Amino acid sequence: MTTFSPSRAFALELDSQDELASFREQFVITDPDLLYMDGNSLGRLPKVAVERARQLVKTEWGNDLIRGWNKGWWEAPRRVGDKIGTLIGAAAGQVIVSDTTSVNLYKLTMAALRLQSGRKRIITDQFNFPSDLYILQGVASFPGGDLRNTQYEIIRIPAADDDITPDLAALESAINEDTALVTLSHVLFKSGYLYDMRAITDLAHRKGALVLWDLSHSVGALPIALDDCNADLALGCTYKYLNGGPGAPAFLYVNKKIQEKVSSPIWGWWGQNRPFDFGLDYEPAPGVDRFLVGTQPMLSLLTMEAALEPLLQAGMDRLRAKSILLTDYASTLTEERLAPLGFSPGSPRDSARRGSHISIRHTDAYRINRALIEEMNVIPDFRAPDNLRLGFAPLYISFADVWDVVDRIRTVMMEKRYEKYPKEKLAVT
Amino acid sequence: MTTFSPSRAFALELDSQDELASFREQFVITDPDLLYMDGNSLGRLPKVAVERARQLVKTEWGNDLIRGWNKGWWEAPRRVGDKIGTLIGAAAGQVIVSDTTSVNLYKLTMAALRLQSGRKRIITDQFNFPSDLYILQGVASFPGGDLRNTQYEIIRIPAADDDITPDLAALESAINEDTALVTLSHVLFKSGYLYDMRAITDLAHRKGALVLWDLSHSVGALPIALDDCNADLALGCTYKYLNGGPGAPAFLYVNKKIQEKVSSPIWGWWGQNRPFDFGLDYEPAPGVDRFLVGTQPMLSLLTMEAALEPLLQAGMDRLRAKSILLTDYASTLTEERLAPLGFSPGSPRDSARRGSHISIRHTDAYRINRALIEEMNVIPDFRAPDNLRLGFAPLYISFADVWDVVDRIRTVMMEKRYEKYPKEKLAVT
Repeated sequence: MTTFSPSRAFALELDSQDELASFREQFVITDPDLLYMDGNSLGRLPKVAVERARQLVKTEWGNDLIRGWNKGWWEAPRRVGDKIGTLIGAAAGQVIVSDTTSVNLYKLTMAALRLQSGRKRIITDQFNFPSDLYILQGVASFPGGDLRNTQYEIIRIPAADDDITPDLAALESAINEDTALVTLSHVLFKSGYLYDMRAITDLAHRKGALVLWDLSHSVGALPIALDDCNADLALGCTYKYLNGGPGAPAFLYVNKKIQEKVSSPIWGWWGQNRPFDFGLDYEPAPGVDRFLVGTQPMLSLLTMEAALEPLLQAGMDRLRAKSILLTDYASTLTEERLAPLGFSPGSPRDSARRGSHISIRHTDAYRINRALIEEMNVIPDFRAPDNLRLGFAPLYISFADVWDVVDRIRTVMMEKRYEKYPKEKLAVT
Repeated sequence: MTTFSPSRAFALELDSQDELASFREQFVITDPDLLYMDGNSLGRLPKVAVERARQLVKTEWGNDLIRGWNKGWWEAPRRVGDKIGTLIGAAAGQVIVSDTTSVNLYKLTMAALRLQSGRKRIITDQFNFPSDLYILQGVASFPGGDLRNTQYEIIRIPAADDDITPDLAALESAINEDTALVTLSHVLFKSGYLYDMRAITDLAHRKGALVLWDLSHSVGALPIALDDCNADLALGCTYKYLNGGPGAPAFLYVNKKIQEKVSSPIWGWWGQNRPFDFGLDYEPAPGVDRFLVGTQPMLSLLTMEAALEPLLQAGMDRLRAKSILLTDYASTLTEERLAPLGFSPGSPRDSARRGSHISIRHTDAYRINRALIEEMNVIPDFRAPDNLRLGFAPLYISFADVWDVVDRIRTVMMEKRYEKYPKEKLAVT
């Protein structure tokens, strides 16, 4: 592990050695003093996306009108899916962009359960993003396909003693011959814990279970090797590290090995074979395209496509190397400069098991978060009960930012600036 | 019915009396000579949407970043839903904007079937948009809820003898005590036939069936009175007469009377009660909000919100009056000037049973459509097997446009310009 000297000069030295430093210039930054530590929630605006959105509206919608569908719109879910595929280790023809993460999870879970007829156990963990848990609960409440008489059992793997990582022994013993599906977030939204995709996938396959990975907090933050790990199914969102813009459509992956065996529960015309024949009976499109449903939001989708460019240029290996250095540095500064002020770690210390965000815990985390936003020009976020979460998007976060955010947190603590804020939670963050 | 004189001067006279004529100036029109008769498929770009999209990207995403969610993004599905509600006769709190038309149809169909446990008949017609039929077929293939042992029967009402309108007698006799749901397109995408919403809804209710209306081809084209007709469920798209932009998110309506009785099959966090508590167990949000699922595409959604403005200003009654005059005029000109060239009507002659588009039929319709696009600067569209479809969006189509499009079709026919095009269909239109 790198040795970090505790000074801002050292942070500037790290920045001067950072070969990705210039990527920050590819983003619109209206307030250079703002420390935006929430790129793991909504990525910054790439300059290329500004121009693309303008052109899309004025030229493609305004001038091409309906002809736009023949000039790149119709193909966009497949084309952009393949681009995202290069970031997640998926060969062409396995990824599409469509709908939302939750709708995609619904489609893929239903497809997996239908394929796994007879098995009734679904395994996830208590750290999963709540929407993922809700989707599973809904599926179990509205069972489908050949399994229409099945009462599903959803098992939520508990936390290990550290309350940061999942209980891996419990996970291993829960996966049995009755397990239809193991579905987990690759990186956990709160603690940033990173599952070992290959090991868990192998574990599930040995019992005949399918694995579905939610990549929302890992895509664009670290290299992913879906094909190489022999993953079955995956999905993720595009507005975090992919910088696709608020609510940009999600993606899903279906491994070629099972594409012809699975079907979507939602049979829309975009997933129809030869949709412009307007035939009255559904016939699934070949391959992953059958998981398309209806007309996709082109302003959001095509702006997101352009927004991928800086990421594609930088390359995931270089981004991961910088991300590890950023989060190691943040962890070290937390230990040295924040632990004495009452903070404890909320994320794994081992970078091999950590994504690109870290949580630091404090009983007053909610109020500290408020003070940072209101008074210190920092945007972190708060995750109940006591996590102050900091995202380190390696495309535009500098080492000086890491130093400065820790410094501003220190100011809030030393000057007790958080005490004036109420203890209740935000309505929306 | 108005008497129309067969001259362009008369068309100009109609335009001079048109109190909505100036609304055309609220749209971006890059080529004034283009006759865009496809506003029923993708509406033109309102000028207000250009500015809104620019502001959204640069100011809201670029500067507000994650704070945008607290400045109007999170509430947008409800706020914009209520605006659309004013166009479809729905009091506040019954309409949300979310996902696509097909995904919404899936959610509402599943909800209806669950509520109608024990009934196994689903009634639609052969004129429905194919994606609607596919969704129903998928639902029947993946049955749900309390009906998990049900084998659904989907009945497609056939055409009447004219091949333009549905066989209403067959529809009436098909609705029985075993009917769970009647789901129809309010205006048919091909012929433009307009169902009598009140009569059909009453018919269904007398047998205890629920009714779900697809308003995609009627919303923004004519006044709709969902509450007053006591409709149960409805949905529609926003990129046709609502001018929301390519693939802008769809809307759905659930009548207040049944909101607390129905549940969505797709349980996402946007449909959760108190989503920012991040609770691990799903609890449906009150009312129609439970049909929200995941994060919506804000660039598309909020640009669409702005795009509604010209329509809201014009008002549906005035728009309908102009639409009827436009389609009556087009029908008359078709009879007088195109019937002698081999065209026959593909739409109802009675404006009370017609939306805002008409189809005219010709055995060479496919090639005529191609010639109009390639050589005559007209954009109509073709719908198999023999329909040339013309949309009359009353916000920006003039009476001179109606005269001119008929005139340009005459030129194609008189000069046999269509003969050089192949007879096969387009891949995408």
